[in-house]
This record gives sequence, C-alpha cells and structure tokens, in this order.
Amino acid sequence: MVMRDVQTGQRNEEGIAAVLGILKQQLGEKLQTGQAFREQHSHTTTYLPRQIPDGVVFAESVEDVKAVVRACATHRVPVIPFGTGSSLEGQVNAPSGGISLDFSRMDKVLRVSPEDLDVTVQPGVTREALNTYLRDTGLFFPIDPGANASIGGMTATRASGTNAVRYGTMKDNVLSLTVVTADGEEIVTGTRAKKSSAGYDLTRLFVGSEGTLGVITSITLKLQGIPEKIGGGVCSFPTVKAACDAVIMTIQMGIPVARIELLDEMQMRACNAYSGLSYDEKPTLFVEFHGTEDTVPMQSEQFSMIAAECGGEDFQFTGDAQQRAKLWKARHDAYWAARALAPHLGALSTDVCVPISRLADCVAETHADIRDSGFLGPIVGHAGDGNFHILLLFDEKDPADIARAEAFVERLNRRALSMDGTCTGEHGIGQGKMSFLEQEASSSLPLMRAIKKTLDPQDIFNPGKILRPGA
Amino acid sequence: MVMRDVQTGQRNEEGIAAVLGILKQQLGEKLQTGQAFREQHSHTTTYLPRQIPDGVVFAESVEDVKAVVRACATHRVPVIPFGTGSSLEGQVNAPSGGISLDFSRMDKVLRVSPEDLDVTVQPGVTREALNTYLRDTGLFFPIDPGANASIGGMTATRASGTNAVRYGTMKDNVLSLTVVTADGEEIVTGTRAKKSSAGYDLTRLFVGSEGTLGVITSITLKLQGIPEKIGGGVCSFPTVKAACDAVIMTIQMGIPVARIELLDEMQMRACNAYSGLSYDEKPTLFVEFHGTEDTVPMQSEQFSMIAAECGGEDFQFTGDAQQRAKLWKARHDAYWAARALAPHLGALSTDVCVPISRLADCVAETHADIRDSGFLGPIVGHAGDGNFHILLLFDEKDPADIARAEAFVERLNRRALSMDGTCTGEHGIGQGKMSFLEQEASSSLPLMRAIKKTLDPQDIFNPGKILRPGA
Repeated sequence: MVMRDVQTGQRNEEGIAAVLGILKQQLGEKLQTGQAFREQHSHTTTYLPRQIPDGVVFAESVEDVKAVVRACATHRVPVIPFGTGSSLEGQVNAPSGGISLDFSRMDKVLRVSPEDLDVTVQPGVTREALNTYLRDTGLFFPIDPGANASIGGMTATRASGTNAVRYGTMKDNVLSLTVVTADGEEIVTGTRAKKSSAGYDLTRLFVGSEGTLGVITSITLKLQGIPEKIGGGVCSFPTVKAACDAVIMTIQMGIPVARIELLDEMQMRACNAYSGLSYDEKPTLFVEFHGTEDTVPMQSEQFSMIAAECGGEDFQFTGDAQQRAKLWKARHDAYWAARALAPHLGALSTDVCVPISRLADCVAETHADIRDSGFLGPIVGHAGDGNFHILLLFDEKDPADIARAEAFVERLNRRALSMDGTCTGEHGIGQGKMSFLEQEASSSLPLMRAIKKTLDPQDIFNPGKILRPGA
Repeated sequence: MVMRDVQTGQRNEEGIAAVLGILKQQLGEKLQTGQAFREQHSHTTTYLPRQIPDGVVFAESVEDVKAVVRACATHRVPVIPFGTGSSLEGQVNAPSGGISLDFSRMDKVLRVSPEDLDVTVQPGVTREALNTYLRDTGLFFPIDPGANASIGGMTATRASGTNAVRYGTMKDNVLSLTVVTADGEEIVTGTRAKKSSAGYDLTRLFVGSEGTLGVITSITLKLQGIPEKIGGGVCSFPTVKAACDAVIMTIQMGIPVARIELLDEMQMRACNAYSGLSYDEKPTLFVEFHGTEDTVPMQSEQFSMIAAECGGEDFQFTGDAQQRAKLWKARHDAYWAARALAPHLGALSTDVCVPISRLADCVAETHADIRDSGFLGPIVGHAGDGNFHILLLFDEKDPADIARAEAFVERLNRRALSMDGTCTGEHGIGQGKMSFLEQEASSSLPLMRAIKKTLDPQDIFNPGKILRPGA
C-alpha cells in the first residue's frame, strides 16, 4: 500500500453531470447520490483515503448494468463495480469520481446442477449466502477469503484464502462468466464443460482484472461435495523454519490437507491475550483435513508423524466439530486479536506469496525487519501456498509512521520478489500495489497496458487501479 | 475438422525470400529448406492436407527464437511453432508458408525444485523425457495426452488427457511462461509463487493460444508426488447411461479417481479383435486410483459399490502393476484397435466435451447418429470430465465420404454446444474447428480478434489458426 499512488485523478465534470442526468431518468431511485451512500461506496477497510463516487447505482438486472456502462462510455465517466466493499487495496475507490455500480440487489442463484457440481450466480451473492443456499444439495463452494465477500468481488480479485491449498483459487473454480464490455453488450466467456481448448481463455483474463476490463454480470462456479468428515488439529514448533519444514513435507507427500495455517509467536501471544487462552506462544500450525471417517484420522496420523519429525510438540487433533472450533479459535480470532495488541493504532495487511521453500527465509527476514523497525506486526500465513499476511500496526494519523510503514512494505515486497514470489497472493493490486506490480511484472506490463487499452479504450472501467495512469 | 477451412492463405513471396536470406546468414545450418524437412514440419496426423513451410529453423536458444521472430516481423512472414507435430487440428500447417520454428533442440530441463514441486523446461522437452528426468526426485508431471507431445505444444494447445479428472489440464499446471512477443523481446508472465493476484493473467492467455499470440520459450510447471500406491480396475455396464451414472456418483462423492475412462461397445469389440482379448463387449469403465496402501483399496471398494448400484458387472481390480497393465490393455490399445476395424480407411478424432450430466445423452444421440450414418466410429471418453472422442473411420480419398464425415462432425459439435458443452475438450481449434469456435464463442469472438490484433498486429504468429482470416 503506497499512499503516493492514491492520487486524485482528472474529473470529467461535464460527463459526470450528463451521466447522472441520464441515469436518474433511466433508473430512477436505483441511482442514489446522497453523501452517505457515496461514502459507503468508497474504500473503508484500511487507512487509504476515501475517494467517493458521484453516484451509486443499485443494479437489479443486466439491463441496468448495460445502461450504466453505455451512459458512462458515451460520456467517458468511470464505472466502479462494488460487491461488499471488503477489498483491501482501494479497489472500490473513485479517484476520478464516477458511478459506483453496486451489486447487492443482484444476489440471485440463477441455476444449480448438483450432478455437474456447478452453479451460476449473480455477482452480488455472498459466499456465505451461496453456501446457505447449497446446504441441502450436499455441495459447497470452498473458497474462503475470510470476509463474507461477494462472488463477483472474489472473482474480480482472484481471491483465495485458507483452503486454497486444497481447492485452488478463484482462477481454478470459475467455469465461465458473463461480462458487459465497453460497448455495453454482454459476452459469454465459456461453457459449462469442465475443460475446453476452444480459443483464448477469456474467463481467466477477467478473473483478477479487478473491474478494469469490463463488468462481470454472472459467474458459473465449480462446487465440491461437503466432506463426510472434517478433522482439525494444532501443533506448535520451536521455530518458523521447523513449522515450514513440516508444511513442505506435508505437501510433498501429497497429504491432501485442506487448510494449513501458520501463526507466529506474536500472533499466538495476541490470541492468548485477546481470548484468555493458553496456547504455547510459539510458531503454530493449524491444520484441517477433509475426507471420510477412514481417511481423516489417517491423514492426521501422517501429519503428526511429520510434525514430530520436524520438532513439533503436542499435536492436538479432533474429529469433533465443537472441539475443532475450540482448537481453531486462535486462528478464527487472529485479526481481532492482532488489532487488540494496540487498539489505538491503524492496521494494514500485507500479502506476499513466495515458493514454499523460501517461506521460512522470507518470514525470518521479515521478523528481523519488524523487530528492527519496532513495529507490532503479527503474522498469519496460508503456509501451504507460501502466502502470509502481516497485520502491521502503526499510527495512521502520523505521516512519519505512515512513511515508516510504507518503507517496511516496500522492503517486504522487494524481499518476496527477490525470492521469485509475488507482491499479492490474494488481495490484488488495486491502488495500493501498482508500483510493486511494475517491479514484479516489468517485462509484461506493456502487454497488460495494451490489453487494457484494447478492452477499455476510454479508460472508463475502474480507472487508476492495477495500472498507474500515465506511468 | 472442416476441410473447407483449410485454405491456402496469401503468400508474401518477397518477404519469405528476404527472411530465408537473413536467417541463412544469421543461423547457418540451423535453417533447413530441403523438401523432406519441410514436409515433416507440416500437418501429418490426419487427413487434413499438408501445407508446408518455406523453411525450418531448429532453434537452439532464445536468441535464435528472437532472430526468427524479428526477421519475420520485419518482413511480415508467418512463424509456426513446432513441438513434435502430434497436434490433431492442423496447428502446424503453413497455409501462407513461412518459417516452422522447431523446438526439438531446445529440450533442456532448466531447473527443478523438489521442495516447491515445480520445474522449468524448454518447450522441446517431451512429457516422457520430463518424467524420466524427474524419476529420482519422487515427483512426476501428471498430464498425459496420449502422444509423447512436447511441453511447449501441450501448453499451446491447453492439452489434458486421461488423468485431467484428478490433476487438471495444462491451464491448471502451468505456473509461469516466458514468451517472445511480436517485438522480438521476451516477457515473463508470472513468478514461481503458487498463487498470485498480480494483474492480468497473461499465463492463462498464452496457454491454449496455439502459437497465435507469441512464441513460448520456457514453461514453469507444477509437479506432483509419485503416488505411493496405484490401483486399477475395469467394470462393464449394460448401457452407456449406467456407466455415466457411475461416473457422476463417483465424482459427486468426491472419490479422488485419477482416471475414469469410458469405452463403448464398438471400441471393446475392436479391442477384443485386435489383441485377442475376451472383455465383455459392453460399455466399460477403466478406473485408476492414486493414493496410499490404505486409501487405494478403500477408493476401489467405494467405486465397486457405486458400480454395482448402477448395474455394473464383475468389477475387476488390482493393486499390482503388471496385472493393472493387463486389465488396462484395451484402453492402451484403443487407438490402434479402432484403426484395425478398417485398416484401409482414414480416421479423424472428434473431441467434444459436455457437462457430465449430459454425457450419457450426448453419447446415446451420437451412437444413433453413427448407426444411421453407417460409419464405424468407436468411442473412448475421459468420462470424469465429460470429454469423449470418436475415432471416425471413413474413406479419406473419397470426397463424398469426406463430406459425409464432415456433416457428421458438424452435427456432433452442434449437439455438444446445445448441451452447454464445447467443440474441443483438449485438441484445440487449429484449422479444423474454426467454424465451430464461431458458433461456440459467438459473443466473445470479437474480443478474441481484438486481442489477436493487439498482440500480433501483423498476423505473423501461426496465421490461419483459431480465428478464420477475414471472417
């Protein structure tokens, strides 16, 4: 997150006025321009400044989306898709004003095929609502980024979360999309076939495009059968290196772990303090297995042997749902526990991801950096993917502290890139990571720019995100 | 495969002469222009006519690739990447002449990281050579399209094969690419991080682009641990519907089957005749499980219960490698057994893929069509993915028979599209399926064309493939 990238863009006042007039006429009360609505539809989840849109359209149909895109294309006004607003890198900010396109009323499950394990949803369906809807089918949608995000937003951000190690990311779980493109028409990017070699992979081009190439209007997703049995466990390790070694061996042996989360000493201390728990304040792995009554205990046994071999202590495992929730409590409370370390400070969440062989080094060097910098910064990692977050606590009112935090984030991202990693495993680029994308993808950035220019020649789709204007 | 799409394109004679002169000077003996070399580097795997290039460059380095692309870009001459020539839709034909860029000498494994389960290879490495190289690491690369294709070709075609049901397709197994683009420079499309939300997914844009957007110069792949235990089995069913029901239940219950292949009655008859075997001549599923000494027998037991419930008979299973090879013999011999039904006839392989709930219907309607048309056309299906191939046997010397075959293929593809399927699960579009892509992706075709135009403004990269010129 680099403050200097969160600039106010050029505003097209005449165009904005024209679009507001047109949409008022066409959409009536679905367009809201009150200050409260507009503020809710700007970035609200970190210390990044709010940049509010000029109007909010609560779309109720694809026709509404087309109307917005057409009016905005005609008058060169920004369109900013909005799911639940839980993105972390300023994706929903409106640096040049424009229309926030809210999908909360497009929240229908359009079809489901239990036989094919797939479902088609409107973008405003949240992952929790989807799983509630699916409950009776014996199926579930596995991607869990923590927040109760919308499927549209998760698709646009290429989200993942705790169980990507088993089920992949949004990239792996979207079969097909419909998208309203710059000409105001809707295209279909794929079929319901489980695989296809038919032409360019437009589905994957829109997944992770953060609303900058078009507006997603429906998503066809793969589903999974609800596991017959879920088991979970917790194990502490003398060092982060030892914990990472256990993760590498687990992955290498092909144990189909569903979640394998790393919490560092500071995070464990925070959890103990926050929830009155008594975990060992050591690097700790939280693991979960999905399978059958037979395979879950086997997987747990295999993991416990690996953990012991790597110096892990006192592996606690349970197949009981309530007990599991208790064992996993520290993981579930991690965010609020970390915030409680310094309730008066602001927080930002980093998101680097490195090859797992480098995870221990990356965390160790980052620990040293946190210590040397004097920050509070507990670490939670999706260790099986080599992805970890630092919740960096700092005084967001103090420009000097912001500058120190940004310098830290800069070092962290450079460290990850030097280890052949990425600046973002799952949060996306938004406004906050544009300069890191330039470092990470320096050779391919011109191609990204060319694609943006081709699909969005007037730069109306979420301008000022992913690619720095004019850089 | 539609013959009418295999047209000769416009030849740029002056440009071709200039490029041959430049490359002779720059690359010496790496450029070959003899008739035999040129013929070997045209389409040779089906009845589609050969369209030979004007020269073949045996690239030995990225610099050689750049030299070819630069010369061809300067003089607007086609560049046609060539792996092993095992593609099935005319992908390596040269309808407008040009340079075939042969990767057989770029066959090095560049690096491997057993800890990260990934490897980087040059495009000319074949999948068998890769697995031989990896043997001592305990890892393997799972994608198996049948032919010993090159990794570059498999990437370009978005290939898959028998065990995609477990391990996914090339789309799911490529971490990153290097690609020489139209300006003659090499770009990097990703990192070695297992997941990333950093900008547009250029990796997936090049996977499946069949050499039409740039030339792939290296591929970083995910690897898998070699299973501790592999077991295989065979089970016959009274009807294709019953077999498909067993497949659907297997997938729905989350049994992690590694392969689940359907052979129809005609194919089983062909196999018995070809290899002197005595399988029941009924629709038959060939299954394989990858796991541990404990889990493989469990999975097999679960499958056998499902199979019995669906009317399957006499499920034979073995955990012994030699026995498994024997049980699976019909599957392994399927292609040659089918050809032997009518050795004097030509053959083409279709490749539709439908949602598995529609697989039984699609096969049943296709059976009726085969019968009504009087063709020999045994079916082999990657049933877990809803993908099946008919090896259609017909007289490739007889224009009337070719026309009948093409009409059959047209009906088949329309049938799959009407079931929300795709015209190609794994073979790609090439020259043979351009008209079907136009039907399947009618709404998104303009976007594909725009991307092609952006990345390859002069149409030098494998012209006349995927997108019909001027259509």
